[in-house]
Amino acid sequence: MALARFDRYVDRHARTFTERLQTLCRMPSVAARVTGMRSMAEAVEQMMQRVGAGTRVFKLGSGFPVVYGECGAGRRTFLVYGHYDVQPVGQLSEWSSGPFAAATVGGKLYARGASNSKGDLVARLCAVEAYQKTFGKLPLCLRFVIEGEDGLASPSLTRFAAEHADLLRADGCIWDDGYKDTKERLTINLGFKGIAFLELRAFGARTDLHSKWGGIIPNPAWRLVQALATVVSLKGVITIDGFASHVAPVSAEDAQALKSIEIDEVGLKQEFRLSGWVRGLTGRALAKELIFGPTCTICGIHTGHTEAGLKTTLPGMAVARLDFRLVPDLTPGLVVILLRKHLDERGFEDVELIELGSAPYAKSSIKSLVARAAIESAAEVYGAPPVVYPLDPATGPVGVMCGANTPPTPVVSFGISYAGSNPHGPDENIRLDDFIQGIKYFGRVIHYLAQNDQERDQSEDHEDAVEAVKVFRDQG
Amino acid sequence: MALARFDRYVDRHARTFTERLQTLCRMPSVAARVTGMRSMAEAVEQMMQRVGAGTRVFKLGSGFPVVYGECGAGRRTFLVYGHYDVQPVGQLSEWSSGPFAAATVGGKLYARGASNSKGDLVARLCAVEAYQKTFGKLPLCLRFVIEGEDGLASPSLTRFAAEHADLLRADGCIWDDGYKDTKERLTINLGFKGIAFLELRAFGARTDLHSKWGGIIPNPAWRLVQALATVVSLKGVITIDGFASHVAPVSAEDAQALKSIEIDEVGLKQEFRLSGWVRGLTGRALAKELIFGPTCTICGIHTGHTEAGLKTTLPGMAVARLDFRLVPDLTPGLVVILLRKHLDERGFEDVELIELGSAPYAKSSIKSLVARAAIESAAEVYGAPPVVYPLDPATGPVGVMCGANTPPTPVVSFGISYAGSNPHGPDENIRLDDFIQGIKYFGRVIHYLAQNDQERDQSEDHEDAVEAVKVFRDQG
Repeated sequence: MALARFDRYVDRHARTFTERLQTLCRMPSVAARVTGMRSMAEAVEQMMQRVGAGTRVFKLGSGFPVVYGECGAGRRTFLVYGHYDVQPVGQLSEWSSGPFAAATVGGKLYARGASNSKGDLVARLCAVEAYQKTFGKLPLCLRFVIEGEDGLASPSLTRFAAEHADLLRADGCIWDDGYKDTKERLTINLGFKGIAFLELRAFGARTDLHSKWGGIIPNPAWRLVQALATVVSLKGVITIDGFASHVAPVSAEDAQALKSIEIDEVGLKQEFRLSGWVRGLTGRALAKELIFGPTCTICGIHTGHTEAGLKTTLPGMAVARLDFRLVPDLTPGLVVILLRKHLDERGFEDVELIELGSAPYAKSSIKSLVARAAIESAAEVYGAPPVVYPLDPATGPVGVMCGANTPPTPVVSFGISYAGSNPHGPDENIRLDDFIQGIKYFGRVIHYLAQNDQERDQSEDHEDAVEAVKVFRDQG
Repeated sequence: MALARFDRYVDRHARTFTERLQTLCRMPSVAARVTGMRSMAEAVEQMMQRVGAGTRVFKLGSGFPVVYGECGAGRRTFLVYGHYDVQPVGQLSEWSSGPFAAATVGGKLYARGASNSKGDLVARLCAVEAYQKTFGKLPLCLRFVIEGEDGLASPSLTRFAAEHADLLRADGCIWDDGYKDTKERLTINLGFKGIAFLELRAFGARTDLHSKWGGIIPNPAWRLVQALATVVSLKGVITIDGFASHVAPVSAEDAQALKSIEIDEVGLKQEFRLSGWVRGLTGRALAKELIFGPTCTICGIHTGHTEAGLKTTLPGMAVARLDFRLVPDLTPGLVVILLRKHLDERGFEDVELIELGSAPYAKSSIKSLVARAAIESAAEVYGAPPVVYPLDPATGPVGVMCGANTPPTPVVSFGISYAGSNPHGPDENIRLDDFIQGIKYFGRVIHYLAQNDQERDQSEDHEDAVEAVKVFRDQG
């Protein structure tokens, strides 16, 4: 009954809520480009205040501020983590409309950041508003922690976690990484792979030269290619010495959870226009690789000239970015040590290795309160039980947030995106129906947490909730 | 005596001549950027008319025009080949002053195109002016052929050569590729390596994706890296199947010429800030590799994201550009066939191979009239005999020009640049003293050709002049 009233409020305000999202999406906030970040942080704070949150803005060092907002009060406290910065837009020519036009076409809202993750932030704040309008003041404490450096490896959030651990003491953490899969099933994640984001650099002459010198002056592009070719095999297997021995076997609980995960191979292949998967994997083996396999991805290579004009250059420098997604027991520090050693032993001492960013993996139990709230609230809104991932193939700074407590805070994550949202590519978009549905779902999660407020303190959940959250310390 | 008068004219007009060059250098004419090309062609024509040349402008298809100018008349005819387009400027931030500001600092003129090759074009036209003011009308015919597509693999020039072979019938051809080496010795080239400029492309998903997919979606960047790693060995040796067997042994005449070539290893290492040469080559072996070695240079690779912002992307496409410099008996068509076969046999059928441009190698005898004119006129101006290269490590469309006749026209090349001119990189520059010296030298070359007008027709020179100039026909 009460939830029916909540839903009516959401439906009546659907247009207003959508406009609020468009307003945020029209404010460019590419952390890498710096511009627009301050006004974006202010807009987030104002939106929090609008739903009655007490706010604080934490400016830590030279970074972009962490915007903090607290709603409601009760015995339990939950963190809601998000970010207001967006990814770089990439090639403008690949976008159908301006990345900050926030155009709505055919029930979709197109904007850089619509999916990752302004849509989730606005949906959650709107749910708080609707919940309060329906039920009155929240009977639990929700702490929104919204950072501006998701695209910059979250240095301010890391500092925030260290300096304000008191604000992060919580019974659970809700993140917004998640989407409907190609079969329209909500996915819920109970953990995240870690990341080691590295840059390899090779050097030749002090500047790009005429390529007539190609026969006698060392070419850093060849050097980089030869070094990279030793890191991953032709079959796509990571061949760094000793790497595989640090990958933990999949536990019985995880193997069980894996059985319910089915990758929509046909749908994804169509979506991404793929002819096949790495090593021809399929079925259970494909799912296992996606969820529990470590990755080493070339995210980018740049050297010399490949633009318009036939410039025959001998490059002076070559750069590659490598992104390792880390499963238990791989840590960012370990990857750096293993890769450096691997390169050195093959004579690539001259290839520089630079750490661009890192985050540890995080892993929660299905028995934690936030996990149950998310899982058990889903069917009513989405019409079917969610797909629960024991580990999300993606990463987030959530390890930093959850690792501030001992034992680490259980984390659960879900979002309003869908399989076609393309959050890091051109034409990033969300479906407006998913946005409204997400507001209704988040209201139910709040409701579940509020109703279960009186049950016994399941602190023992916490202990087996997180197998390992290790905050990576730079090992040089 | 007469040449002293010629020199005085040049010295009196040094400032005017320099200003003429600055005017051309202030007109951006990057063929790849299209803008400014038409007004540049007009300016070249006007400058030709100013020294009394009869001009014609050949607009062939959709390309940039070939500007043709004819001066003087006599029994013999010589081609002067050049180009009015310039290379892309690259990163503006790497330039000390604007690439089209044509700033003069410390006796140097900085501009994109100053060295390659507006400086030479202006110097040669000024020399014609000074020669005529001193000696009267030229007693031989000089045909300036100045194209606008040096940076675009010269499609219009190729068509011009095919459609106007009559205009290219000549006793010799003078090109402007050349410079003073680090020991300040003029270099003269009697041939040029050919080129095959290719692009390799690998494809993955239809667009860049979030790198969480890295474990299961094929990454075209890894594919490209693995394919490239089979093309050149760790030691920098081209490892394409069958490639080496097409490299002709160095002839006795060439081996003799090679002995007089000494690479200023210390000077070049300092200039380019190098710690060493490919495979640790040094001395005679280094010179032989530079002059007679075929090359395979990665000129550029682009895939994914390497700019500001930590964008963890799984690229949808990866591109590499390869530049092969070709020595006898390698042809562009042969390289394409060998590389395609090599990749296919290793399972890289999916890696696309695209031909971006090509030119055959050209090679002349030291006994040809233009070669003797250039070699024997040098010492008086430069104070020392020139260094004669039997084959220039660089390439030019000169093969197209010289191949229009049977037997091919002997070619000789020299220029006003110096070892620090950096013609394809930032801060391209020439020294103004070299520019003036170049005018005086070109006047002497004209004088030598004019004085030797009556000697027996050395048509037999032509026959052994060019060992092989093969016009490459696209073999698909």
